[in-house]
Amino acid sequence: MTLEDDAINLHRILKGKIEIHNKVSLDSTSKPDDENKEGTLGLIYTPGVAYAATKINKNKELVYEYTSKWNNVAIVCDGTRVLGLGNVGPEAALCVMEGKSVLFKILGNINTFPLCIDITDKEEIIKFVKGIQPVFGAINIEDIESPKVLEIVERLQKELSIPVFHDDQHGTAIITLAALVNAIKLIGKEISKIKIVIAGAGSAGYGIFRLLYAIGAKNIIVTDSVGALYENRIEDPNKRNTSSNNRYKIEIADKTNPSKIDGNLDEVLKGADVFIGVSGKGNLISKDSIQSMNSDPIVFALSNPDPEILPSDAIEAGARIVATGRSDFANPINNAVVFPSVLRALLDLQIKTLSEDMLVSVAKAIASIVDDNQLKDNYIIPKLDDPRIIHIVTDTLKNAIQKHIEMKDKNNK
Amino acid sequence: MTLEDDAINLHRILKGKIEIHNKVSLDSTSKPDDENKEGTLGLIYTPGVAYAATKINKNKELVYEYTSKWNNVAIVCDGTRVLGLGNVGPEAALCVMEGKSVLFKILGNINTFPLCIDITDKEEIIKFVKGIQPVFGAINIEDIESPKVLEIVERLQKELSIPVFHDDQHGTAIITLAALVNAIKLIGKEISKIKIVIAGAGSAGYGIFRLLYAIGAKNIIVTDSVGALYENRIEDPNKRNTSSNNRYKIEIADKTNPSKIDGNLDEVLKGADVFIGVSGKGNLISKDSIQSMNSDPIVFALSNPDPEILPSDAIEAGARIVATGRSDFANPINNAVVFPSVLRALLDLQIKTLSEDMLVSVAKAIASIVDDNQLKDNYIIPKLDDPRIIHIVTDTLKNAIQKHIEMKDKNNK
Repeated sequence: MTLEDDAINLHRILKGKIEIHNKVSLDSTSKPDDENKEGTLGLIYTPGVAYAATKINKNKELVYEYTSKWNNVAIVCDGTRVLGLGNVGPEAALCVMEGKSVLFKILGNINTFPLCIDITDKEEIIKFVKGIQPVFGAINIEDIESPKVLEIVERLQKELSIPVFHDDQHGTAIITLAALVNAIKLIGKEISKIKIVIAGAGSAGYGIFRLLYAIGAKNIIVTDSVGALYENRIEDPNKRNTSSNNRYKIEIADKTNPSKIDGNLDEVLKGADVFIGVSGKGNLISKDSIQSMNSDPIVFALSNPDPEILPSDAIEAGARIVATGRSDFANPINNAVVFPSVLRALLDLQIKTLSEDMLVSVAKAIASIVDDNQLKDNYIIPKLDDPRIIHIVTDTLKNAIQKHIEMKDKNNK
Repeated sequence: MTLEDDAINLHRILKGKIEIHNKVSLDSTSKPDDENKEGTLGLIYTPGVAYAATKINKNKELVYEYTSKWNNVAIVCDGTRVLGLGNVGPEAALCVMEGKSVLFKILGNINTFPLCIDITDKEEIIKFVKGIQPVFGAINIEDIESPKVLEIVERLQKELSIPVFHDDQHGTAIITLAALVNAIKLIGKEISKIKIVIAGAGSAGYGIFRLLYAIGAKNIIVTDSVGALYENRIEDPNKRNTSSNNRYKIEIADKTNPSKIDGNLDEVLKGADVFIGVSGKGNLISKDSIQSMNSDPIVFALSNPDPEILPSDAIEAGARIVATGRSDFANPINNAVVFPSVLRALLDLQIKTLSEDMLVSVAKAIASIVDDNQLKDNYIIPKLDDPRIIHIVTDTLKNAIQKHIEMKDKNNK
């Protein structure tokens, strides 16, 4: 039996990995013996439910008290960029998002409903998400193609009254930064002095670049399918591809690649301290490229299901710390460490927006869970079911909000 | 403690009546001891899930086998006409729809997610429902104002590839017809000879009129807030109200009220055999009106939470058979007898469209569950948790499809 056989069999047997459960039973479907007492049916449905509805209508905030909204998260996905598989459509995306929903529940006790939609237009997706706002406490945007999705997230964060998390961007960036913080600690390098190459300029690449830039990395190079991004590359018609002139790539080009190196991934990897692969492409780099890196290479080949290089090959080629996005290899850099805990905190603390500072604080907090004496090449981030994650993420975000309020009070005085 | 206190307390304690449950557990979050075996995580999420997604992408029908789609129903509601409360908005609607979801689960084992949306425009609602099609096996439209909703349902039934049920229209009509079939059997009247007055020309009134007309009722009068509908009423400016010229009311006017009686509800009730109240208005008719009806009056005062007349008053005024839409009175005419079983059958039999003949057959089948020797004035339809309902509804629809196929084969020969 191969992994493929096992996975298909499991899906065929389960016929869906999640289901709706009732939190209440019908004790009686008609009038109970005690004439003065109403059966459950009359309380959870008509006529009793009309009282709750009337109260919510008068005070909309009560929807958080009388319904499941406080703990409901929608996964919104149009199926245009699922894992490293590409545009497989919303039906295929559903089995992936159900898996995500299972993790949301088991790790964050969140009710997550996967809404894989047959809507791909940017404005229509924004409209759709606005439409479902009444029912959900937060939105998780997932596996929508870039750069469309980056614009959608920006717009939704401004225009919605509930928090919007984009796991491919925010979740991946947090867990990658957490892993990197511990990896460079282990080999004794400093973030401001290392050369970091990121393969992939989509949601994940952009999100990771933003956080690395925010914490003071000075030498970042991001590549897309054409090669390294650098200032003015888009003015060279030979270096342009259809998606190279989006404003997120322009921002990356402006803030990275200080020496304006023009080259493909293999070329820019020479002398790099860190490779971060979020390209969506398997087998993208060779052993030779790893060998061309600086001493103690850190290789995060995060694409799923096929990493940019197999861990065994990377280690053979001399990589010191190797991680992938897969749970069946050592050092899984899995967003599942992040999304259940961050969403749990967003819901519980009723936080509307996550600033970049908050994302960085959460990354550092997650990194701190691994004690210095436990830290080793194949254990750089906590396992996804580590019970300390939820607490530390919630505390971190609580403190961040508290600081923000204190700063505001100070400025107002 | 009043009913209101009990209902509010229950909602406050539960904080939501439904939740998501996992059908699978994580047996291992990392590589298990047997190196050749993958832990559950790698099967339900990456990398294993990619195999299932790839297969669905190649053959979309597999979404019914590998995901929960086969058993997922969306309740779509814009909150514009919730119970008899009116336009209370999507947040208030959520607690009602969660109650409905509980009944779908317990009575039909269906995963129903309540999507109470902040979208009220007709075309936008149609677009929204089309968008969620990939995830759901069927759609249940609920508590959207009429006549907008009747057009939405017509359009969706044509344009969607999954079945669309409109409980306020189809569900109410089925259960009302089932109750009426048994009620007139009990008092020995015939459907073609009785005078039936329906108060309310919205979704329920229209749905009930359609089925009564289909089974041969000859003297139906439908009233709206202006009074009785009749041919050409809309040409009289004094008898017109803003919504009186919609095509559903015109259809009703054309096919009912053969004597073209012009009058208010009290006037047309004189000599009627049956009153069916789906007006959304409590305390709409008086004891005097009941007294003006024909012998053995049948009074179905179905509005929720407040019926058109209280059962005690109706009986005092001489009504023979009295029913309401509430579970705390005798003879509850509750859609919950219908929607879980019909949706269960639609999902299991993968039926795309419900014809009017099918609705009538289901109504008669449900009526038949009550044996002649059990039938009495305060027991005219089965209790909603009667286990025979699911079987008989599924069998009825299975036979209907079979007949349809045989007819087609015959015609083709």
